[in-house]
Amino acid sequence: MSLIVHKYGGTSMGSTDRIKNVAKRVAKWSRAGYQMVVVPSAMSGETNRLLGLAKELAPTSANLAYQRELDMLASTGEQASSALLAIALQAEGVESVSYAGWQLPIRTNSAFTKARIESIEDQRVMADLAKGKVVIITGFQGVDEHSNITTLGRGGSDTSAVAIAAALKASECLIYTDVDGVYTTDPRVVPEAKRLLTISFEEMLEMASMGSKVLQIRSVEFAGKYKVPLRVLSSFTPWDIDLKEEASSGTLISFEEDEKMEQAIVSGIAFNRDEAKISVIGVPDKPGIAYQILGAVAQANIEVDMIIQNLSKDGKTDFSFTVHRNDHAKTLDLLKNQVVPELGAAEVVGDTKICKVSIVGIGMRSHVGVASKMFKTLSEEGINIQMISTSEIKTSVVIDEKYMELAVRALHKTFDLDQDKA
Amino acid sequence: MSLIVHKYGGTSMGSTDRIKNVAKRVAKWSRAGYQMVVVPSAMSGETNRLLGLAKELAPTSANLAYQRELDMLASTGEQASSALLAIALQAEGVESVSYAGWQLPIRTNSAFTKARIESIEDQRVMADLAKGKVVIITGFQGVDEHSNITTLGRGGSDTSAVAIAAALKASECLIYTDVDGVYTTDPRVVPEAKRLLTISFEEMLEMASMGSKVLQIRSVEFAGKYKVPLRVLSSFTPWDIDLKEEASSGTLISFEEDEKMEQAIVSGIAFNRDEAKISVIGVPDKPGIAYQILGAVAQANIEVDMIIQNLSKDGKTDFSFTVHRNDHAKTLDLLKNQVVPELGAAEVVGDTKICKVSIVGIGMRSHVGVASKMFKTLSEEGINIQMISTSEIKTSVVIDEKYMELAVRALHKTFDLDQDKA
Repeated sequence: MSLIVHKYGGTSMGSTDRIKNVAKRVAKWSRAGYQMVVVPSAMSGETNRLLGLAKELAPTSANLAYQRELDMLASTGEQASSALLAIALQAEGVESVSYAGWQLPIRTNSAFTKARIESIEDQRVMADLAKGKVVIITGFQGVDEHSNITTLGRGGSDTSAVAIAAALKASECLIYTDVDGVYTTDPRVVPEAKRLLTISFEEMLEMASMGSKVLQIRSVEFAGKYKVPLRVLSSFTPWDIDLKEEASSGTLISFEEDEKMEQAIVSGIAFNRDEAKISVIGVPDKPGIAYQILGAVAQANIEVDMIIQNLSKDGKTDFSFTVHRNDHAKTLDLLKNQVVPELGAAEVVGDTKICKVSIVGIGMRSHVGVASKMFKTLSEEGINIQMISTSEIKTSVVIDEKYMELAVRALHKTFDLDQDKA
Repeated sequence: MSLIVHKYGGTSMGSTDRIKNVAKRVAKWSRAGYQMVVVPSAMSGETNRLLGLAKELAPTSANLAYQRELDMLASTGEQASSALLAIALQAEGVESVSYAGWQLPIRTNSAFTKARIESIEDQRVMADLAKGKVVIITGFQGVDEHSNITTLGRGGSDTSAVAIAAALKASECLIYTDVDGVYTTDPRVVPEAKRLLTISFEEMLEMASMGSKVLQIRSVEFAGKYKVPLRVLSSFTPWDIDLKEEASSGTLISFEEDEKMEQAIVSGIAFNRDEAKISVIGVPDKPGIAYQILGAVAQANIEVDMIIQNLSKDGKTDFSFTVHRNDHAKTLDLLKNQVVPELGAAEVVGDTKICKVSIVGIGMRSHVGVASKMFKTLSEEGINIQMISTSEIKTSVVIDEKYMELAVRALHKTFDLDQDKA
């Protein structure tokens, strides 16, 4: 029978009672004949507890030796939760064994605290599965070529699960989490938001990059690269619900663009308040300007999201871009003290009271007029658009932060995403 | 300069403040030019916390798969504390790196939860030491031939430290603990007890086997086997005391029988209350009796300590032995229901209100009359001796539990162990 990977987040593993529930759920799948691999996160709070101890001992540092020890430290959380889950499964009468990343091994590069998986050895896992054992594999971690433990960065357990599913050619990777799927938008903002039964990988990527916290973005990239069918579903359903019902719950992130998907022009509305806008006004419009501004920003390790250059007027142009809100002050300083004097630009202004709202939909590829429908809706609500950027399946606008909820609700309605009346 | 191994117990590693103190102490040694290897225990309470979680999930089991997971789980405590100590040392400006047992590797057999070290690879450690790094190695754990994590059993960090010191040919292994050395007897029973500057390995072994909790007995065996000079000293002295003073504090467990040692006939008085006595009375005195009784006990996995068979009278004899107090009821049942009916012995009686008191001293080898001096002292105090056993460097008696303190104090005085008046 087919091989299934389950991934459980820290909340699902948060206490021995919850671990017992996870064990009962996994046992149900195992007894139904599936070959089961489970990737648990550390018990909730554990990673923060460990890193908190490190912070009490030393200030955070980019030093390699320090980063290496952080990974030695943080990786223990998943090792402990994996062993505990194996014990809970054994208590359920299911044969089970846990492996730390280095034991397979899951090989990564040496970028401590943000390593990337390079390969996964499947021999041991396959042998255990063949014997009918449930295999637990620590999420979040691997081992580099010098036998140093590495971690994939926060939320890396999602990525581990998808990478393991890809390596084992699993028929599906189920991400159990504290939400019951991917919604057309955040239900806290739009109560009418509805759960999507399926979403395309590319749409999910855009939603994830816009701050939808359902899945870590790298795990979605991985799933896309290796075509791993991914399902996001709730870990709060009773463990003993019907397996078929459970297996079709949540949201499937799919790789087949079926008819039904084509019909939905916009799948969801994403938004975030994490960005700040920087505008360099009155820049001489000559070649190399963008590089002079953004090159300096990139050198300071500041990530830039949206970039807009307005039409030139009188040989001058305005240049705007967005950065993470935490980098706003640093970016302003950099430009004012270093870049602008060299450029001879008139002025640099920043604005942290902005938000970014995006419509995401694979249907936008083959439909014209979607963006203008978005702009019309915002205009009808009296919302001024400050920046626009578009991609094949997404249109994003930057607007005043205070209109965020209004814009999201209006767009959700305009694109017919409101929940059907039951 | 010479290579030194420090071992710190869970109490010394019990908080970030204490870990900082350990780091400062180790940094002092490193700056003085010693090549430093440090073996820390898990932070106090951590191993119990982890095993407590396991107990909440499943009843304790001798099952191999379960025992394997316990080791996966428990080994995380030392990995975390090792990484934390490395971070604390780096914050002190000392280059430092931590290794889990599997990373060297420290190879053990596969006896989960009570594994034995088979070999230690020193290549990585030596390379780091040559670069001037302080190397932290997780205590308590290793890896078997199938890349499974194993642990050495509770207190195994002492054994790790000694084994590592032996493998690296360290000039001394310093065990930092919450007592300031080995005493002639427990100072809580005899306030006049004095700290021994040196004790021979064999005496230490006898003291340890008698329940002196200063060192795990296996670590002493290891030190004896590989002739590792071992020092027990306090981790509560200020970290910045003079290094020479610190280096000669505590008690040195030595392998050279110097003149001074020869003069001390008795080095210490050991005692414990952990045992219970079982007597089989009126056994037919014929060959094979001891085996019939003790074979059944051994098969039930019950460890026997002292064994005494009295002179036969009228073709019958009495047979007594001691077991751990926890095994008393089980042993009585076994004998009454199984062994005695087969033997045709008259009666089985047990007594848990006993204690064992021993005088230990390498000088006893070359001095006659030491045992009789012990018996005389006990007789003068009106204490009846129930059982006696002797070895080359130890004489033990079993007496009524209520006389324990009295016996220990009297013997301590008789053998001139009381502290010199300051």
